Amino acid sequence: MKHFIYDIPTKVYFGENQLGHLGAEISRLGKKVLVTYGGGSIKKTGLYGQVMAELQKSGLEIFEFSGIEPNPKVTSVNAGAEICKKENIDVLLAVGGGSVIDCTKAIGAAAYYEGDAWDLVIKKAPVDKCIPVVSILTLSATGSEMDANAVISNPETHDKIGLKSPVMVPKVSFLDPTVTYTVNKYQTACGAADILSHIMEVYFNMEQDLYMLDRTMEGIMKTVIKYAPIALAEPENYEARANLMWASSWAINGFLKGGRTLGWSCHPMEHQLSAYYDITHGLGLAILTPRWLDYILDENNVSKLYDFGTHVFEIDKNLPAMAVAKQSIEMLSDFFFKTLELQSTLTEIGIDETHFEMMAKKICGDGTLTGFKPLTQQDVVNIFKMCL
Amino acid sequence: MKHFIYDIPTKVYFGENQLGHLGAEISRLGKKVLVTYGGGSIKKTGLYGQVMAELQKSGLEIFEFSGIEPNPKVTSVNAGAEICKKENIDVLLAVGGGSVIDCTKAIGAAAYYEGDAWDLVIKKAPVDKCIPVVSILTLSATGSEMDANAVISNPETHDKIGLKSPVMVPKVSFLDPTVTYTVNKYQTACGAADILSHIMEVYFNMEQDLYMLDRTMEGIMKTVIKYAPIALAEPENYEARANLMWASSWAINGFLKGGRTLGWSCHPMEHQLSAYYDITHGLGLAILTPRWLDYILDENNVSKLYDFGTHVFEIDKNLPAMAVAKQSIEMLSDFFFKTLELQSTLTEIGIDETHFEMMAKKICGDGTLTGFKPLTQQDVVNIFKMCL
Repeated sequence: MKHFIYDIPTKVYFGENQLGHLGAEISRLGKKVLVTYGGGSIKKTGLYGQVMAELQKSGLEIFEFSGIEPNPKVTSVNAGAEICKKENIDVLLAVGGGSVIDCTKAIGAAAYYEGDAWDLVIKKAPVDKCIPVVSILTLSATGSEMDANAVISNPETHDKIGLKSPVMVPKVSFLDPTVTYTVNKYQTACGAADILSHIMEVYFNMEQDLYMLDRTMEGIMKTVIKYAPIALAEPENYEARANLMWASSWAINGFLKGGRTLGWSCHPMEHQLSAYYDITHGLGLAILTPRWLDYILDENNVSKLYDFGTHVFEIDKNLPAMAVAKQSIEMLSDFFFKTLELQSTLTEIGIDETHFEMMAKKICGDGTLTGFKPLTQQDVVNIFKMCL
Repeated sequence: MKHFIYDIPTKVYFGENQLGHLGAEISRLGKKVLVTYGGGSIKKTGLYGQVMAELQKSGLEIFEFSGIEPNPKVTSVNAGAEICKKENIDVLLAVGGGSVIDCTKAIGAAAYYEGDAWDLVIKKAPVDKCIPVVSILTLSATGSEMDANAVISNPETHDKIGLKSPVMVPKVSFLDPTVTYTVNKYQTACGAADILSHIMEVYFNMEQDLYMLDRTMEGIMKTVIKYAPIALAEPENYEARANLMWASSWAINGFLKGGRTLGWSCHPMEHQLSAYYDITHGLGLAILTPRWLDYILDENNVSKLYDFGTHVFEIDKNLPAMAVAKQSIEMLSDFFFKTLELQSTLTEIGIDETHFEMMAKKICGDGTLTGFKPLTQQDVVNIFKMCL
């Protein structure tokens, strides 16, 4: 295990009726607040009204930027940054899921940059400052509420790229599980797949790890597997929504990573799928992950899948390691495609092999995709084909 | 599960050779730094020299306060605060275990108070400001490196009382597992007992909890049980020392607590023991915990001990719940007294029943000690007697 720096300063108000703290927290950061959100579902649920009432009560000067799309686009980042510059915004308040929060972080960074925000995404220019971000989470999935990441898409170039900077970590996040009662079955299922994938990308690792973190990851994976079906069956089950919500933050806030430096595997592949086809991120991950595990499983890595199978799915420890590994992949598939009722193939969602070669090339560049097991361009194409 | 506020802003440098960051981190907080430590073991190990070299390199103005005792006394707090006031100290750098860090936090708070620091401990005056604290941890046990607590003793009144304030949370902590290679068997064992106890005080709870946190606690308890014996047998085993060190921070930094509001049981009892007899905190907890569990076990709480036994000690799930619960208590006893080789009774460490009634009265006040199961004064006396 190597050294690492743990630095997650986000303050979280978890639970019902915490918005009474919103005005004071925003006021600590400034006077002029830009409220960002998506297509307006927060108006239907009443959350928008509550937020505005709290901000007005604290005498804040309120601006709005709405219409942030799923797989948020760089055009939205530029438009939001423009408002920040023009109005001298002090604080950003993102009200939404991962797309809204990601876009808002990028807006905060782009507000300090003279030029196209895409330059920041492709690392042509560094991110070293960001307008402070506060978030009110409405969907348990990406973990953006407590991490340093923002994934931004550019439909013109078919690119979807992650941007990361400690200055973009939200200062304060409000996590009220009851806000997610209105999230539909499909989005709940995709969110659960996203949370699981964040953990698996770190868990499946050949580096020498902190045992403590492996056991913690297994506990959080068990949590998602237990509660996602409950949330589908009973959308207003507080216990289920609360566990999924807190799991979403901890899956990717950096704690579980410890000193691991290995790259991720399924996320880079999925980013290409949604860059080309604008599919839901969690769905792409659900389709890819079991095929990826199936493809890479070998004698070198079987012990990790044995742990996964016996600890997370409670498969009989006395079975041979390879049998446990294969059964764990089947159980994961069943979880995604039977329990969560997600579509199980790329074909079903209208994706064929047209762009597989190009996507694999973008993923691997001139080399291989490093990760749990290094993947060549051909490997990536093969995995995509297994998903058809 | 109720609402809670998660707020743990400590930045942690984990691993070997991280002290190169020390000067920059201290400089961010000020120019005049008071280095606090205990009896001088850091001089023998060479850590003192490394720390001073880093501080000098950054051109900081260095002051020192040494001799902080185990179960730190209010007299030390007052003496340290005096230096802070006289020299206008900007930053405190605690180099040591929990006692040094606790005392340093209290010094930081007392520096803003005109009067006896004991007033802050007994809540006669509020703590609302604290000189920023940075810590370099040398012993995995109390978790003080990442939490808001400081436990201070007053030998005159036989009191040992916890003080807690968010302003006292360390800003930055350095956790280098190799620094703990020189910690002896006894202190390593007591530290492991302390870590386990912090988790058990929260885990054994009748409130409706976040399942995710219960599974995480079980994972961290398994970690301590796996690695403490390895650290005893091989003091320079990095993996063991690293897992114990990170477990110590997470056992009590607030994450595992979630929305639980129930009081603790063994810590209040142990604080009386060390207030009267100045024993090592972790040892007192090890002696008390199995007896406490044995005393309170009943049909209402057996399911929690069943989880503990089957998940942490991997006892056969098919056994009756009560049998699992009893076996889990035996296994915990064996872990403390056989595996860790800690003394198993109060008698062995020179404590008899002389002060049991008085201590029970201090613990329960006019009512009961609330917790996993409420305890009357008589219950507390009975538990103490079981430890003879």
